[in-house]
Formats: sequence, structure tokens, C-alpha cells
Amino acid sequence: MKEQFYKYIENLQDTITSKLEEVDGLAKFEEDLWRRKEGGGGRTRVIENGNVFEKGGVNISAVHGELPEVLRKQFKVKEGNFFACGLSLVLHPINPFVPTVHANWRYFEMYDDTGNIVTQWFGGGQDLTPYYLFDEDATHFHSVCKSACDKHNPEFYPKFKKVCDEYFWNTHREEARGIGGLFFDYLKETDEYTIKERFNFVTEIGSSFLESYIPIVNKRKNSSFLKEHKDWQEIRRGRYVEFNLVHDRGTLFGLKTNGRIESILMSLPPIVQWKYNHQPKENSEEDRLLKILASPKDWV
Amino acid sequence: MKEQFYKYIENLQDTITSKLEEVDGLAKFEEDLWRRKEGGGGRTRVIENGNVFEKGGVNISAVHGELPEVLRKQFKVKEGNFFACGLSLVLHPINPFVPTVHANWRYFEMYDDTGNIVTQWFGGGQDLTPYYLFDEDATHFHSVCKSACDKHNPEFYPKFKKVCDEYFWNTHREEARGIGGLFFDYLKETDEYTIKERFNFVTEIGSSFLESYIPIVNKRKNSSFLKEHKDWQEIRRGRYVEFNLVHDRGTLFGLKTNGRIESILMSLPPIVQWKYNHQPKENSEEDRLLKILASPKDWV
Repeated sequence: MKEQFYKYIENLQDTITSKLEEVDGLAKFEEDLWRRKEGGGGRTRVIENGNVFEKGGVNISAVHGELPEVLRKQFKVKEGNFFACGLSLVLHPINPFVPTVHANWRYFEMYDDTGNIVTQWFGGGQDLTPYYLFDEDATHFHSVCKSACDKHNPEFYPKFKKVCDEYFWNTHREEARGIGGLFFDYLKETDEYTIKERFNFVTEIGSSFLESYIPIVNKRKNSSFLKEHKDWQEIRRGRYVEFNLVHDRGTLFGLKTNGRIESILMSLPPIVQWKYNHQPKENSEEDRLLKILASPKDWV
Repeated sequence: MKEQFYKYIENLQDTITSKLEEVDGLAKFEEDLWRRKEGGGGRTRVIENGNVFEKGGVNISAVHGELPEVLRKQFKVKEGNFFACGLSLVLHPINPFVPTVHANWRYFEMYDDTGNIVTQWFGGGQDLTPYYLFDEDATHFHSVCKSACDKHNPEFYPKFKKVCDEYFWNTHREEARGIGGLFFDYLKETDEYTIKERFNFVTEIGSSFLESYIPIVNKRKNSSFLKEHKDWQEIRRGRYVEFNLVHDRGTLFGLKTNGRIESILMSLPPIVQWKYNHQPKENSEEDRLLKILASPKDWV
């Protein structure tokens, strides 16, 4: 399973980066290969200063070795070996009418003393963070998520949409990071599903990513905008930073387990503003966004 | 003691904000009074878009009530009432040759069922974050810190300087946030010191602040700079954000105990950049700064 999923994310990284370069039309991804001292490594691909993308990364990694202490505590085991691989992406477009997107699909295995798999699972999801909200874009993004889920189980979409809304919640601001999408974790073998069926589901979701995001980018990337739109985008990017550094489990896990800092923090936006006590004008588009982020809604 | 210290920080806020307005020459502090639902409140003063200061805040607060859960856990008590007051300031100058400064001086009391003081202590400190390092500025800042400490005990400066270097350490970057200063906490009544003597020490430190910082601002505020210097300042401000959101106990405490978000996050810089894997040119001034931040040194 691990070879199969790693091959999948290797190919998916190629597919996604090629398509993004085509859409951007100017910038190319720069690749960094890195190794992890304790075992494994990754292939980081970063795009900067494009026509469309101000900054973004599409990274894969496969790491293994002894379970780090934070995971031993979390899983309540004394010791053990693990393998983990996944693809993570974040894209910060220049145009404030194009939303930021984040996605991650991953696979995890834990072993006993003799090297047998004790437990294995998939996790991941994708979510959209608009600065100006076009309802039709939110509906498109969620519809693609739903269609991909529905091929496997009609209960998946509502369930994983809800988990996503709960996860990407900036508790200290009482608002959502964006308009959500999907989030799932610990998809293990059960009476109902084989691990191969879990693989089929997660790869279905991963392969639906470009369809969920690219049409939105193409529709909005040439919209004209003013400095005030860009300022608003940069202020909202501040909330993105706050979520990632204060609440995001993946980021904090990476920072506290000696992960490759530059690959983890490629998720942070290129230029960010913090203004004291900024409040948009009442009934403005900016104000409408805040109201929607205050209580997640259904888009499909 | 609490009235005495609160009166002190009230006056100190006035003294500091007047002097900063004089040095800035353009912007004035805007004041926000706020109340805490559970008891107490604060007086937030923020300056933005000045001649010298791009963004800054000098805030006082005095809060009281039942101990929040995180403090009950930290102090290992089942229940209790507390009082806490303090002054916090952060100043982000426009000119990249002027360092950012942070300071905080505070007082805490805890009570038993009958309202008697169980324990009381002072804490605080000040530290400097340059973007371009002038050794003479670092020496000036630390000399003022040392002189203020030495009036009370010659062991204080080396001790609190070391604690400061350890505290403002960005573990995930393996580098200091800046060139340090002083950091002290839990300064209680002991056989050696009465609580009044602790008060005298902390207020001595607070009152030395303007002398430690203003001469540096005046010396550097009119230095001419290029876009590349400003870019470097904004990239380094990113490290400041990382420290405050990932590691700073005060910030995280505020975010997790329902503090006033805008007063807590006024510490974040106005404009920040994150570039992927940015490395300054070897032997440049930027490179020299990084080398010094990698291992704290003695400045006096």
C-alpha cells in the first residue's frame, strides 16, 4: 500500500504542477530535494512571482523511523516505528478575486517490533479561502468535493464537510479560515471498507483537486482590482497565518518534530498585513465575507 | 501594592506615549478603553503610519476574577481569585535601521477563599530586535539595562539577560528573535527582598526604558534606506510573527483565555513577508545579523 500511494502522490505532484504552470503562464516550479536525518525525505516544489500565483508550493514527502515523542504520546504507545507519506499544497494567487487553496492527502503506517503493520490509515482534504466571495465559486468547489465523495458513500460529503468547518476554525477570532471543503482522518480498514477501498476514496479526492480549483482560477485571474482589494487580501492573509501558526496541527507537528522548516512554512503567504482593529464598512463585500465566515453554511 | 503598581503603569504609559509622539513628530496614539466581561479591563494606545513608527502599541490593563483554567493548571490549584496588571509595548519603526522593541512589566496577586493574598509577584523585561545590527546600539541598550539592574543587585543583569536570551529563542529556526535584554518572572517576597523592594526594582527597569531605546531611534531614524533594506526588515518581521504566534507564552495565554484579541495582536508588525528559503548573501550585513542571532553574545 505504501509503494502504491507514494507512486500515486509522485504522479499527482507532476500532474498538478504541470497544470499550475500552464495556468500561470510565466513562473515555473523550483524543486528542492531534501533528506530527513532520521529517515526519508521529500520533494518540495515552489512557485513564486508568477502571472497568477504570487507564491505556492506543491510538496511530497515520505518519512520513516522511530515514532517521534509527540506521536508516541498521541497514540499512547511506548515505542514503535512508522512510515508516513503525503502531498501538501498551498497556493496564494496575486489577484484578490482568486481564492487561496490548501490541500493535503496522506497515508500513515505503524509497525510492531517484528516490522508487521499494527495500524494504517489515510487522511487529508482540501479547503478554499476566498478574499472576495463569489457564491458560485464556493458552490463549484463544494460540488466537485461532493461528487467525488458520493461515488464512495453519500454520507461522506456531509460528514467530512462538517469536520472541515470545525477544523479550520480560528477560535481566537470566532471565524472560519475560509469556506471549507473536506477534511478526514484515520480512515482505517473496517468491516465496511478494505484499506484498498480507502485508497480508492482518497485518490479519487486527490484526483478531483484540479477540477475543483482551476475553473475558479481561470474565471477570476484576469479580473481588474484596486489597491484596496489587495490590502484586504493581505489583511485576510494575516488570519491565514494566525490559523497556521496558532492552531494548525500539521504545522505545529512539523515545527515541534524537527521537520524541514522551509517546506512546512511555504504555506505562509508572501506579503501580509496586520492593521490594528481593522473593520470593513458595513454592507461592503468585505463585511459580507466576515458574516459568512462567522457561521459556516451549506454550498451544495 | 496593586494600587501602587497600577498608578505607576498608568503614569508610565503617559510618559512613554508622550515621548514617542514627540520623537515621531507626526502620528498620535489612538486610545481604546475596553472592559473584560469577567472583571477588569484596559487602556490600549496604538500609533500607526507615523514619521518614525509604522505601527506600535503601549497598553495597560488590570484584570481580576476567578483564575482561568490554564492558570489553575499551571499553578496546580483547584480554584482561586487573582488580580493582574501590567504595561505591554511593541514598536515597529518604518526605517529598517531602527530596531523593533518590546517591553512588558507586570504584577500578579492570588487570593484564598477569604480574599487574603496567598502569593504575589512581579515579572517583565524588555528586548531589542534589530534588522541591521549596529554593535554600539546593542551595547547602549544592554548598558542601560545593566545600570538599572546594578542599582539593586549586581547578579541581576547577567541572570535576567540569560533568561531573556533563552526565552526569546525561535526553537524551530534555531535563532534568537533579537539581541535580547532582560526577562524576569516570579519576583516574590523572599528572605532577601521585601515586595516593596521588588516593586522598586521593576519600576526602576520600567523607568529606564526610554533611555535605553530613544537615543537609538534618534540616531537612526533619518538614515536613508533602499527597497532591499525594507524587504529584509519585512522578512525578519516574519520571524517576529513566528515567535509571537508559536512560542510566546503571553500571546498564547491571551488567545486561549479570551483576552482582547486586538490588544494582544497589536504586537504583530504592519507589513510582513515570507519568501521561500531566503538566504542573505555571504558576508553581507544581513548574513552577519543571522550569525549573531544564532548564538547570543555579551554586549556589555
